[in-house]
Amino acid sequence: MPHTALKIVFHGQNAANFRQGFEALIAPGHQVLDLSDALNLPGEREQFETADVVIGVQLNESMPRPLQARLFHAPAAGTDAINTTLLPAQCTLANCFGHENAIAEYIMAALLMRHVPLAQADEDLRQQRWTFFAGRPGALRTELGEQTLGLVGFGHIAQTVAERAKAMGMRVHVANRSPVAHPLVDRSWALDALDDFMGTCDAVVVSLPLTDNTQGLVDASTIAAMRPDAVLLNVGRGAVIDEKALYEALRHRRIGGAVIDTWYRYPTPTQPECAPSQFDFASLDNVLMTPHMSGWTSGTVRRRQETLAENVGRLSRGETLINVLRAPLG
Amino acid sequence: MPHTALKIVFHGQNAANFRQGFEALIAPGHQVLDLSDALNLPGEREQFETADVVIGVQLNESMPRPLQARLFHAPAAGTDAINTTLLPAQCTLANCFGHENAIAEYIMAALLMRHVPLAQADEDLRQQRWTFFAGRPGALRTELGEQTLGLVGFGHIAQTVAERAKAMGMRVHVANRSPVAHPLVDRSWALDALDDFMGTCDAVVVSLPLTDNTQGLVDASTIAAMRPDAVLLNVGRGAVIDEKALYEALRHRRIGGAVIDTWYRYPTPTQPECAPSQFDFASLDNVLMTPHMSGWTSGTVRRRQETLAENVGRLSRGETLINVLRAPLG
Repeated sequence: MPHTALKIVFHGQNAANFRQGFEALIAPGHQVLDLSDALNLPGEREQFETADVVIGVQLNESMPRPLQARLFHAPAAGTDAINTTLLPAQCTLANCFGHENAIAEYIMAALLMRHVPLAQADEDLRQQRWTFFAGRPGALRTELGEQTLGLVGFGHIAQTVAERAKAMGMRVHVANRSPVAHPLVDRSWALDALDDFMGTCDAVVVSLPLTDNTQGLVDASTIAAMRPDAVLLNVGRGAVIDEKALYEALRHRRIGGAVIDTWYRYPTPTQPECAPSQFDFASLDNVLMTPHMSGWTSGTVRRRQETLAENVGRLSRGETLINVLRAPLG
Repeated sequence: MPHTALKIVFHGQNAANFRQGFEALIAPGHQVLDLSDALNLPGEREQFETADVVIGVQLNESMPRPLQARLFHAPAAGTDAINTTLLPAQCTLANCFGHENAIAEYIMAALLMRHVPLAQADEDLRQQRWTFFAGRPGALRTELGEQTLGLVGFGHIAQTVAERAKAMGMRVHVANRSPVAHPLVDRSWALDALDDFMGTCDAVVVSLPLTDNTQGLVDASTIAAMRPDAVLLNVGRGAVIDEKALYEALRHRRIGGAVIDTWYRYPTPTQPECAPSQFDFASLDNVLMTPHMSGWTSGTVRRRQETLAENVGRLSRGETLINVLRAPLG
């Protein structure tokens, strides 16, 4: 089969995480280069403009254009920082998944933590206090497996969470744009019946991407439809849940709590640390706050490298690409 | 069907946990009494001696005998504090399970906690530190699902853990007295090949009861056969793992860590708090210490009440009992 040697550039710190061992996954003969986020080192601009394949998470007006690129490949699922109008006509945009196992472990860990007080039990027993000793008053805990898990969206992440939740004994409810008939799902709703769905769940996981249709989808009225002891988890994109409505619901204890991994404000190269919201979530004791970490495991990196290498191979052999978000124009 | 009215006594604080709502689960007409641990209140000794059914976890030389009992029912799985030689010949000894879901949740929570640093991530982000932000150096974590779980014993608890571990993506290895061929099990060993088995596992769960054959089964040589980064979990009985060998292995960091719920020393009525071992486990940072809590959930209580009520019904109707550990003698 024909094999075209490609110039592949890894753009920036995020892409660099997928660089180690990458050559071992692709055929010999390709050129692989590492470029800085700012693209301001000698020759970087030209390498970016002449690359056949750009691996990166960002493309905006302030950057050079990938004029020769036939493949712009995000090593991530979300591509909302890639302005597709800046891609040349011949260029395919693709993304990677491979994070669903990692995110499902994060979700199950966060859910189980609400039922099994391991940290407190350990702290107490080290001081010879048998606080949670079976049979003691107040020691009885609840079981996650007796609860109902709600999944808003039913993509890769939600399906992987559903497998683990079912094995734990949970009921699984889904709210999704298109109807869901799936052996793991006990009951499903359309998104226009989101409020009905919310009232049936003990925990609700939002794993939607950010689009015009999902921005603010979970708003004050949706949150008001939750049970007073239910927990809301977000591993999709922050802005899918209305920022002020979430903060107010937690502050006034209208819901049982929240587990938030995807936020409203993020660090930038010039400000590497920042508060994740304009609201003071850090003052609340009923939220578990994590820094967009749920998908970040060695397994995710390996599975995404495999996807990147697969598409590099397909492109060089003239084959159909996988995980395509935008095909070449015209 | 014939129905005999029974005198049922709940003996002590442990049994009292299963008392609330019990009458609603049994036929009307039975007499249900609550007795103190010490059995020293007026009339308690006689009630104990004349009960048809004793629900309790303890029977020893210092106590009155349940002379009339036809059923001594532990509301727990372990009956090592019940001296069966003190039971009258006509008495059946039965136990309860129903804790397997609870213990499996404890196990999965403890295992996931070692991979997903939720508490630290939350503490840091509250101070605007994005320590575990995807892509940051040092933020990459491992996945439980890529690991191999070892189960020593393959009873109710281990099988329930295996279901959840498989759904998480783990390989499941088993070491058991009798050979195990089960769809959830990837590979199994006999107990005389325990050391071989240990070397294949990233985490090993001991869920064996305490018997003459299991006491000290996991000894210094067994622990020495573990991988240096592997974790040992005990939710069976403390003494199945050699106390000194476990302490020394942790102190010298020969294994990755331990999660210990079942111990070597327990509180007594006269000493309600105590250290759980003669060795200073509380000085170690590579052990998660919990106070025999793994099975203690509202679900466990409900499922055990159902078993107790089922056997009361069967006894009163002259039917075969379930969960029998010792049948009437002679």
